[in-house]
Amino acid sequence: MARLCCCRSNVSLFLAAMTLGLLMTVYTIRTIQLLGEEEAIKEPITTFNNRRIPRTELLEENNNNNNNNNNNNNNNAITDGGGTVDSSSSPCECKERGTTVSPPSLETNNEQKIYLPKPVRNESHAQFNELPMIFMITPTYKRLTQKVDLVRLCQTLMLVSNVTWIVIEDASTYSKVVTNVLNNCKVKSVHLHEKTTTFVSRRKGGGGHRGVEQRNRGLKWIRDNHGLKDSKMGVVYFGDDDNGYDIRLFHEMRYTSVVSVWPVGFVGMLRYEGPNCQDGRVVSFHTSFRPDRTFPLDMGAFAVNLQILMNKPEVYINHKSAAGMLETTFLSDLEVKPSQLEARANNCKNIYVWHIKTEKPKMPYERQNPGDKTIEV
Amino acid sequence: MARLCCCRSNVSLFLAAMTLGLLMTVYTIRTIQLLGEEEAIKEPITTFNNRRIPRTELLEENNNNNNNNNNNNNNNAITDGGGTVDSSSSPCECKERGTTVSPPSLETNNEQKIYLPKPVRNESHAQFNELPMIFMITPTYKRLTQKVDLVRLCQTLMLVSNVTWIVIEDASTYSKVVTNVLNNCKVKSVHLHEKTTTFVSRRKGGGGHRGVEQRNRGLKWIRDNHGLKDSKMGVVYFGDDDNGYDIRLFHEMRYTSVVSVWPVGFVGMLRYEGPNCQDGRVVSFHTSFRPDRTFPLDMGAFAVNLQILMNKPEVYINHKSAAGMLETTFLSDLEVKPSQLEARANNCKNIYVWHIKTEKPKMPYERQNPGDKTIEV
Repeated sequence: MARLCCCRSNVSLFLAAMTLGLLMTVYTIRTIQLLGEEEAIKEPITTFNNRRIPRTELLEENNNNNNNNNNNNNNNAITDGGGTVDSSSSPCECKERGTTVSPPSLETNNEQKIYLPKPVRNESHAQFNELPMIFMITPTYKRLTQKVDLVRLCQTLMLVSNVTWIVIEDASTYSKVVTNVLNNCKVKSVHLHEKTTTFVSRRKGGGGHRGVEQRNRGLKWIRDNHGLKDSKMGVVYFGDDDNGYDIRLFHEMRYTSVVSVWPVGFVGMLRYEGPNCQDGRVVSFHTSFRPDRTFPLDMGAFAVNLQILMNKPEVYINHKSAAGMLETTFLSDLEVKPSQLEARANNCKNIYVWHIKTEKPKMPYERQNPGDKTIEV
Repeated sequence: MARLCCCRSNVSLFLAAMTLGLLMTVYTIRTIQLLGEEEAIKEPITTFNNRRIPRTELLEENNNNNNNNNNNNNNNAITDGGGTVDSSSSPCECKERGTTVSPPSLETNNEQKIYLPKPVRNESHAQFNELPMIFMITPTYKRLTQKVDLVRLCQTLMLVSNVTWIVIEDASTYSKVVTNVLNNCKVKSVHLHEKTTTFVSRRKGGGGHRGVEQRNRGLKWIRDNHGLKDSKMGVVYFGDDDNGYDIRLFHEMRYTSVVSVWPVGFVGMLRYEGPNCQDGRVVSFHTSFRPDRTFPLDMGAFAVNLQILMNKPEVYINHKSAAGMLETTFLSDLEVKPSQLEARANNCKNIYVWHIKTEKPKMPYERQNPGDKTIEV
């Protein structure tokens, strides 16, 4: 009877305890999710389209690069104890966070330096659906090294979340090689083709631009598929298939209100070309070619907010632009002002993209000894 | 009183419910962990050093490549509805799994092909501590494109778990550039330097080999730091810093009993050079240069089981080898027999590594217009 008399209170207690257990479960799941998201949603500091957005990545960059080119202040690094690299620098004062990063623990050895694995900032696994989408427009053309270049770029983008990779072949049809690469690539991608018809070489008075019609095909796809109504925050970037990218470039460009900019390595016959920046704004440009250009920027040196492009649906890249003027005419047509440019990459002090090419391989024995032709290289 | 009389049973009930809640929590955490590990530990099929090991990756490869160079059978691919690419091929019969992969859902459009994002097989996030370690030995030397090449390779390795990246500079000291790259690279890495002293060019009767002393320095580090006693399963691979890698190469080489092999793109002045394989074994080699070599393989064409190297502690790469004979002398010194070679990459039908170079950038304006010299390119 005593047991029976307690039935009601027992049930309530049981339910309360179960609820507590369930709450703990939910809390645990959420904690794990948050760990996956790292700090990205914890520090809304700056605004983007009048919304408060996380910019941990920007902060992270700034912290990592307070001592530019001397990154010994990295948390997990075990730096050299006996080499010639200066490891005596004091720990970086991370003013923006208001904390001091403790110095790295040293594993001294005269002959070796060991860097322990750091937590991978791979956005791909996290629940980053709220991140602004990066639409990366990549023209491509048939050549010996096309596949390896695309494979490397695919793998780079696998480390970035919320990317739509728009790959446009300069061809009148889809190639097997590109189809296979995108089929195996674990990135959301769009495969298009657009044969160049307007190319005029510089010798004949044209600008000698390549990739214009492919980039415009990519722009058209974005506009056709992402109306202003469902315009999620997003950014558009023109990234060639043979360039080299540090993934921090993507983490930073994602938050672009109008146009964000950064320097590019090996452009304009210089070690680097691009903006000189102060306090997040562009103060001048480092360039040798036509410094009178309004925007002396490489095509890989900027990203444009999606809404800027959607608000000017008639604006495409003008293939009639003079040599080196593609970027200036495009941004001018979008009515962007130089004062609106937003500095990235540690106030334009870091190189996160390199304008390079893969050497064409020589294969003099191929004709006489072709091997298995079904093997795709 | 009725409440008091129920105290004991209340407490037991409360405790039982709490325990249930906690068990649910633990179960949830474990489930999430297992999800992270994907299928890798679910299918122990083959053996490695007499231990049953998972080989989901190998299976995955075989499935993906049953129709070689026609990967339209990929689960998540949305293939072309109107293009010229053949999308009519029947779904692949995945015999090894005993299941039939359903055909991809089609989003028909005459002008575009969209590939939805696939689940990223990024081992880095998973609990793969039981995977055999890949020791990747990478010689590097100072040049304009050194940083971008290393950054790209770092990012490739970020997609592979249980890698120790051993980077050896051909220099008498540590460089800032490599230090910075490794400091920022989210891969476990070892940084060494070893200045070349034995290089003899082919014209002077030498083999013209580069990177030998650096690779040997890497081998020495592995032997010094991984005794036979604590010999975990592992594999050693010589991977140059400027080559291109499909990450599936690493997923496959990890399970190597003696020496695993595969073809390499753009080697030996051919489209590809390497083994011809049948049923997992090498039957001949495709090469133009000295086909009489016992192992006509590029340095990037094979991986060696760690214990094979530990059992022969006196064996290093012999810099006195004739041109093109480095690999043959090394594997012969390890007493490897051609019959022991294990085929990878879909019976040597797929190219997962390309022997390439990044073009040297030209910067004629740099001297007269040097820009900010503190910017590391």
